[in-house]
Amino acid sequence: MKAKPILNTLGAFLFILGLLMAVPLGCSLYYGESDTQGFALSFLITSGVGFVLYLAGKPQGDKTLLGHREGFLIVSAGWVLASFFGGLPYLIYGALPSLTDAYFETMSGFTTTGATVITKIEALPHGILLWRSMTQWLGGMGIIVLSVAVLPFLGVGGRQLFKAELPGPVKDKLEPRIAETARSLWMVYGIITVIGFIFFLLGGMSVFDAVNHIFCAMATGGFSTKDSSVAWFDSAYIDGVFIAFMLLAGMNFTLHYQVLTGNFRSFYKNSELRFFLGTVVIATLLITADLYLHVSADIGKAFRYALFQASSIMTTTGFVTDNFANWPAFSQIILVLLMFIGGSAGSTGGGIKCVRLLLILKDSYRELYRLIHPHAVTQVKLDHMSVSPEVMKSIWGFFALYIGLAVLATVLMSSLGLDMLTSFASVAATIGNIGPGLGLVHPSSTYAEVPALGKWILSFCMLLGRLEIYTVLVLLMPEFWKK
Amino acid sequence: MKAKPILNTLGAFLFILGLLMAVPLGCSLYYGESDTQGFALSFLITSGVGFVLYLAGKPQGDKTLLGHREGFLIVSAGWVLASFFGGLPYLIYGALPSLTDAYFETMSGFTTTGATVITKIEALPHGILLWRSMTQWLGGMGIIVLSVAVLPFLGVGGRQLFKAELPGPVKDKLEPRIAETARSLWMVYGIITVIGFIFFLLGGMSVFDAVNHIFCAMATGGFSTKDSSVAWFDSAYIDGVFIAFMLLAGMNFTLHYQVLTGNFRSFYKNSELRFFLGTVVIATLLITADLYLHVSADIGKAFRYALFQASSIMTTTGFVTDNFANWPAFSQIILVLLMFIGGSAGSTGGGIKCVRLLLILKDSYRELYRLIHPHAVTQVKLDHMSVSPEVMKSIWGFFALYIGLAVLATVLMSSLGLDMLTSFASVAATIGNIGPGLGLVHPSSTYAEVPALGKWILSFCMLLGRLEIYTVLVLLMPEFWKK
Repeated sequence: MKAKPILNTLGAFLFILGLLMAVPLGCSLYYGESDTQGFALSFLITSGVGFVLYLAGKPQGDKTLLGHREGFLIVSAGWVLASFFGGLPYLIYGALPSLTDAYFETMSGFTTTGATVITKIEALPHGILLWRSMTQWLGGMGIIVLSVAVLPFLGVGGRQLFKAELPGPVKDKLEPRIAETARSLWMVYGIITVIGFIFFLLGGMSVFDAVNHIFCAMATGGFSTKDSSVAWFDSAYIDGVFIAFMLLAGMNFTLHYQVLTGNFRSFYKNSELRFFLGTVVIATLLITADLYLHVSADIGKAFRYALFQASSIMTTTGFVTDNFANWPAFSQIILVLLMFIGGSAGSTGGGIKCVRLLLILKDSYRELYRLIHPHAVTQVKLDHMSVSPEVMKSIWGFFALYIGLAVLATVLMSSLGLDMLTSFASVAATIGNIGPGLGLVHPSSTYAEVPALGKWILSFCMLLGRLEIYTVLVLLMPEFWKK
Repeated sequence: MKAKPILNTLGAFLFILGLLMAVPLGCSLYYGESDTQGFALSFLITSGVGFVLYLAGKPQGDKTLLGHREGFLIVSAGWVLASFFGGLPYLIYGALPSLTDAYFETMSGFTTTGATVITKIEALPHGILLWRSMTQWLGGMGIIVLSVAVLPFLGVGGRQLFKAELPGPVKDKLEPRIAETARSLWMVYGIITVIGFIFFLLGGMSVFDAVNHIFCAMATGGFSTKDSSVAWFDSAYIDGVFIAFMLLAGMNFTLHYQVLTGNFRSFYKNSELRFFLGTVVIATLLITADLYLHVSADIGKAFRYALFQASSIMTTTGFVTDNFANWPAFSQIILVLLMFIGGSAGSTGGGIKCVRLLLILKDSYRELYRLIHPHAVTQVKLDHMSVSPEVMKSIWGFFALYIGLAVLATVLMSSLGLDMLTSFASVAATIGNIGPGLGLVHPSSTYAEVPALGKWILSFCMLLGRLEIYTVLVLLMPEFWKK
């Protein structure tokens, strides 16, 4: 392991994070609120520490080549550091009482989970709220993908970081050079964010609310500036814009890129997209029926709640228009299932991801087929392309590790004295980067009451989910550190 | 599909099942109770229908060779038929009010699940109780394995039935001829059953209770002649005998066969056995600590309850000495986990089975290792033998289908209006062939209150679990019925 280039890269990365704090600092100055000092200090500390680390690790002479092991370490350490330094504004201003809570809230932001420990959101100053939403927007496409996009000095080593951070089993290269791909993805992300912002304004949202909510919708994050989340607006139009942009954010961004560059065909041919939208449709219909039969005789209302919640949970966003903890068990189980399925690969959504589950279904079906025709040679295909055995193995491993770690974390949470439903749902909602769960952490509640150790466990689950297990887990293996 | 040999085999199989009803008939005559008529009628109907089917399908001339598709169909249909005809005594005597309940109870017996819909067990006559325990003992090693053992006329086709029914991914051949292997397994099964019977007698159990309980322990079934299950005896010695024989029944019977034939080495070298016993030990220690800290200050009592329940659930037996629905969430989650893990391959236990989970863990670890050393060539090994990619694929498919079907069944159960915990736990406890669950179907309750449709869904789960998914699921594929 080469220590210097790791320090150098992490330093540059923290430096950028510090500079980004100038945005909420400006917001705080504009509103003239009491969080100015907190942001000024956080800005200085974060960029200062980043600059020192950057210099300390600066290579002499030759350009540094990062290996794949350094890539894993930088990405995991980068997200952990970002969550510590990004939590400084909450701590210095006093929005949160402890390091545990600040780290939890910031990790929840960057990983686009949206689980919160803040009980009175509307009492916070604008700067803090904006920073909170910004952590989600930045984390959505990946802070490190951002670094690769804007820091050409990382050179070819950036590919390692990019691969370790970008969601999904297959990393499409849109452009031959990795930095260009990263820039393209961020451009698409920015364009759609601006369009969504305008749609929110047209619905009568204030500029401030529109900025915050489009940040958190595009990131499939789910932080809101309102204690009652999207239910606060109580508008079918606003609900509709949320649904549209959450769904866009849950699709593979390379598809959006292709549409923006005039290639519409790939959109229609994409199996994962069909699986993603098909699942949302089926879940919506089932929940609508359940709500209509058991909760509300108004089918229009039932449909609106069902479509919003199915879209919000399937894309792992976590916005709510109704407290689904009060829904019948059938609807709740469907929502928990959607938590595990998650968004598309290459989207800002979390969970196991549609393409993996699609391939797992296909491969399982093939096993059944082999029992009937033992000598038939079959191979799993996706969009008319064969899926290599290596990719398939990696998906199976991911599936088992995802479930295994969720189970392990559930056991740990229950050992802290939490009830069964809370233990399970809090893990499902954090490893899948959703946010609101069931039990003690239901949508109208917060994670504030979870014991401190539980918050650290759940923060780790968020990181595991956002970096798709492997990148984090590999660091825990003794073999990783050998030689 | 050849219809005649299928009818012929199913007929022979039903004929044997009918003859076996002579045993509870004799018991009923011995005790002079009112269930005699029920058994006499059931005996006549079952063996009569079997005989007619057997004749109707009798091949002219050449010996019939069954293909692998016929094998799947016969085994699945055989278990379904056995559950219908095996339920006749309950219906005719009036122990159960409906076909649904009789089918559920009998399927629960043959699949060694042990879930019951009988609310007053101790009020039933001896014959009914014995038949109930017999269904478990017969289903434990497999009624069809029994047929293969005693019906040499099935000839080489028996191999297909044997493969489709025997639990576990790898079917060890103890003897070159399949009928001999089946006979050897039944012999080992019988010998251990007799030894356990003697141990129960030594503990002061009545002959009748000893027979019934050793039948259900060896089958990892869990039916009891007492409403309060094993808690009724309230004896450390009796608990100990149960634990020992449940654990023996949860091990691979080929290991027992080897020990009985003087080969002790294979016992110590077996990875699955270590995994199986290691899991029981860890679960026992964790539950003991949890019970000691939160339920009872008597650590000896905590340990006794923990060891009994961990052994009972891990082996998928389902006997209880304490209502674990009242235990803390941590212990309950551990028990639910054990439900999914299950016994060893080639044992009478259900669940996913230890060897599969062991190989899934090894393969997942290998994926992590490949990230560190991308060019290393590694292969998963078990007991120093390489596991072929085909076996590994079949295990991954099984794992995904097991979880997927459990999820689907949970959704269906909740659609009947059952709460979340009951929906999930009833499925986990039936697809894993355990018996008692949580929620409405907790250990001190029964499945009587589950809606009728739910009983059919759970009966199907039991069958899926006992026949290890593939054998049943393959019948639902259109490709199976083509040509």
